[in-house]
Amino acid sequence: MHKYKVLDKNSVVNYLFEVQEVMEFFGEDDFEASEIGDGNLNFVYLVKSIQNPAKALIVKQAVPYLRCVGEEFPLSRERMTYEIRALINFKKIVPNFIPKIYHTSEDMSVLVMQYLDRHIILRAGLIDKKTYPNMSEHISTYLAKTLFHTSSLYLQSDEKRELINKFNNNTELCKLTEDFVFTQAFMLHDTNDNDNVKNNPLATKVFNDMEFRKKVLSLKYKFMTQTDALIHGDLHTGSIMLNGDETYVIDPEFAFVGPFGFDIGALLANMVNNYIHHHIVTGDQEYKKWLLQTIYEILELFEEKFFELWDGQKNSALIVDGYIDDSTLESYKNQFLKSIIRDSVGFAGCKMARRVFGVAGVEEIRGIQDKKLRNQAEELAIEIAREFVMKYDSIDSVDEIIEIIKR
Amino acid sequence: MHKYKVLDKNSVVNYLFEVQEVMEFFGEDDFEASEIGDGNLNFVYLVKSIQNPAKALIVKQAVPYLRCVGEEFPLSRERMTYEIRALINFKKIVPNFIPKIYHTSEDMSVLVMQYLDRHIILRAGLIDKKTYPNMSEHISTYLAKTLFHTSSLYLQSDEKRELINKFNNNTELCKLTEDFVFTQAFMLHDTNDNDNVKNNPLATKVFNDMEFRKKVLSLKYKFMTQTDALIHGDLHTGSIMLNGDETYVIDPEFAFVGPFGFDIGALLANMVNNYIHHHIVTGDQEYKKWLLQTIYEILELFEEKFFELWDGQKNSALIVDGYIDDSTLESYKNQFLKSIIRDSVGFAGCKMARRVFGVAGVEEIRGIQDKKLRNQAEELAIEIAREFVMKYDSIDSVDEIIEIIKR
Repeated sequence: MHKYKVLDKNSVVNYLFEVQEVMEFFGEDDFEASEIGDGNLNFVYLVKSIQNPAKALIVKQAVPYLRCVGEEFPLSRERMTYEIRALINFKKIVPNFIPKIYHTSEDMSVLVMQYLDRHIILRAGLIDKKTYPNMSEHISTYLAKTLFHTSSLYLQSDEKRELINKFNNNTELCKLTEDFVFTQAFMLHDTNDNDNVKNNPLATKVFNDMEFRKKVLSLKYKFMTQTDALIHGDLHTGSIMLNGDETYVIDPEFAFVGPFGFDIGALLANMVNNYIHHHIVTGDQEYKKWLLQTIYEILELFEEKFFELWDGQKNSALIVDGYIDDSTLESYKNQFLKSIIRDSVGFAGCKMARRVFGVAGVEEIRGIQDKKLRNQAEELAIEIAREFVMKYDSIDSVDEIIEIIKR
Repeated sequence: MHKYKVLDKNSVVNYLFEVQEVMEFFGEDDFEASEIGDGNLNFVYLVKSIQNPAKALIVKQAVPYLRCVGEEFPLSRERMTYEIRALINFKKIVPNFIPKIYHTSEDMSVLVMQYLDRHIILRAGLIDKKTYPNMSEHISTYLAKTLFHTSSLYLQSDEKRELINKFNNNTELCKLTEDFVFTQAFMLHDTNDNDNVKNNPLATKVFNDMEFRKKVLSLKYKFMTQTDALIHGDLHTGSIMLNGDETYVIDPEFAFVGPFGFDIGALLANMVNNYIHHHIVTGDQEYKKWLLQTIYEILELFEEKFFELWDGQKNSALIVDGYIDDSTLESYKNQFLKSIIRDSVGFAGCKMARRVFGVAGVEEIRGIQDKKLRNQAEELAIEIAREFVMKYDSIDSVDEIIEIIKR
C-alpha cells in the first residue's frame, strides 16, 4: 500500500520498479517515461523500453483537480477508483474490448495498461471519414454484454447491491453529468460557451424552450434514480479506440449504476454529431450513408444480442424460472427493450443539445471554422436533439430514429 | 461498544444499567423486564419501573434468525441496523409520528424506545370499526414529508447518495419483499398457504393469469431499481399505532431507498383489505363509507402536501432555481405526482394479491372463520388487486381508485 503522492516522469519509473507485472512486461529492458496527456482530467505517461521502443505501457494517474483547468478546479482523485473498478468489472464481461490491465492502485489513483499504439480515437477516425467494418458488431456486443451482465436481469439481488456499493460514491462525476448534460447547457450559465451564446437567435430559442427543458428534467430524474446497470457514463466517440480489427473502450471514470439507455444514448448522440458534420461540412453522401447504416446496425444488433443474452438466463433477481410462460415473457422482453431504446434516444437528445452551447463542445461542430457553416450545424444539431428529447417516449423502432436524423 | 450477545429478561436489565438515557428516564426507580414479543421477527421487552409501573420503556433486540419461525430460518440481525437508521432519519423529518428513541446500538442490534401504552395497532382498530378523525391528516403528512425530504426533489446529489449508502445493504429484507410480494405468491410455491391453494378455482385462476404476472414483473423491476426516496418498506396497518390524538409509525426494518409509491401502496392495500372485510363480514355501511373517505383523503392530502413541500424548495439535486418557469414546473410537478399515485396503485395491487395465497395473510381476510365468506373476500381481493395491477399506469385520479374499490 502506498500513501498517495503525485508522480512525475521520473518518480513514475521508480514507482513501476516495485510493480511485478510491469517488471515482467519489460523483462531485462530499461524503460523511461514521458508525459503524453492530451490535457484532460489526468496525467498520462507513456512508458517505453529503451532497448525496444515498440514495447510500451500507459500509466494514468489522477490528481485532486481537473488537469485541463488547473488546481483551482478541484476534483477528487477518487475518480480513478471508479475507473479502476469499472475496468475490472468490464474486463470480466468483455475482455476483448477492454485494454489489458497490468496494475491498479486505488491508493495511488494509478492505472497501468496496454499502450494502444495501432489504434486511433473513434472521433478522429469518423472526422477523417474512416470506415470500420467491425465497429457495429463490436460496439453492439460491448453494449449488450456490459449492460445485461451488470443488471437485475442477470445478477442476483445481493450481487446487484454489491455493485451499487462499489460505485455509489462516484458522486462528483455523476454531479458533473447532472450539471453539464442536463442543466446548465440549457439555461444562461457562466460555464457555457458564452461567446457563442451572446446575440445568437438559436441560443435564445433554446434557452426559452420550456417544453424541451421539462422533458430534459424527466431524463435527468431517470439518470439520477434508475439503477439499471453499471454504465460507462461517458461513452462518447472519444472514449473508443479502434482500428480495422480491434475496438477498445477506455476512460470509464464516470461509471456508476445508472440507466440502461445512457451509454447507448451517448454513442448515438456522438455518431449523429459526426453525421451532421459531414452533412454540413464535407457533404460526403457515401460516408453519411455508412454512418447511418452503422447507427442502425449498432441499435438493431444491440437489441438482438441483449435479447439473446436474456434468453439464456432463466434465473436472476427479476425472474425465477417457472414464474411466467414463454410467450408472455417474450412480450415482456419486447416492451423492456423498447423502453431501453426510448430512453437512449432521450439521453442522446440531451447529450447532443448540451454540446452546442454547453461547457464542452465536440470537434465536429464547435470545431467548424466557417462561422456560417458552424451555425448551420448547430441549428441542425438542436433540431435533431429536440426531436429526440420531445419524442423519445413514443419511439417505436430504430427506423424512426434514422428518419429523424435524415430529415 | 458492545460485542453482540442475545439478551434475556435479566441481562437486558443489566444492559440498561449502562445506558444513561434509560437511567435518567427511570431516575431513582428500580425496573424489571418482561418479554412481550408477539412472536414476529424480534425479541421485545417491556421494561417497567417497580415503584411506578406506568413508567415504562420498550426494548427491541434482533436475533440472527426469524423469531416467529425459529433458528432454522436464519435472518441477519443487521435488520435492526436499518430499523435504527430509518427511525433516526424519519425522527428528524416527522418527530411527532415516530416514537421517542432513548438508545440505539447497531452492535447489539438493540433499540430502546417509548412504550406506546395508550395506542393500539391500526389494523386492530380498523377490524374493531374504530374511526380516527386525525388519521388521514397524520398519515398524509407522514407520507408527504418522509418521501419528499429523502428524495432528489429536496436533497442534494451527495446527500442522496449518502442516504443510499446507509440502506443499500438491507439486502435480505428487500429480497424478502422481492420474493414474497412480487414472486412466490403468484406461482406454485411451498411458501404459499397451500392448504387453501389446493383444489381452489380462484388460486388456479390467479396462478394461470400471465398478463397479471407480466404487470407484476414491471412493478417488481421498479421496486428493485427505482431509488426515489427512503421508504419504510412495510407500511401496512400493523406498522401504525394510534389513538384519537396521536399516530406513530413503527417497525421500519424493511427501509431502503426505493420507489415513492411503495409505502403509499402498502397502506392503500391494507385499507382496502379492511374495506373488503367489512363489506363481506360486518356489512357496516357507515364504516365502509368512513374507510373510503379516509383512503380518499389520505391520497388527496398526500398529493396536496407533497406539492406544497415541493413549492417551498427551489434548489435540489433535480432542479436549480431559474432552470424552468413556474407554469412549466407546475405541469411537470402534476405529471410527477400522477406517476407517484399510479405506482402506488400498482404496488397496492401486488400487496393485496399476495395476501390471498402468499406466505403471510392479513387477519381481515385469512382470519375469516366462515369458509364461504372467506372465499368471497378472497375473490373480491383478487378482483380489486387485479384491476389495480392491470390499470395502474393509466389511473388519472383518486376518484378512479375509489371507483375500482366500490365496484
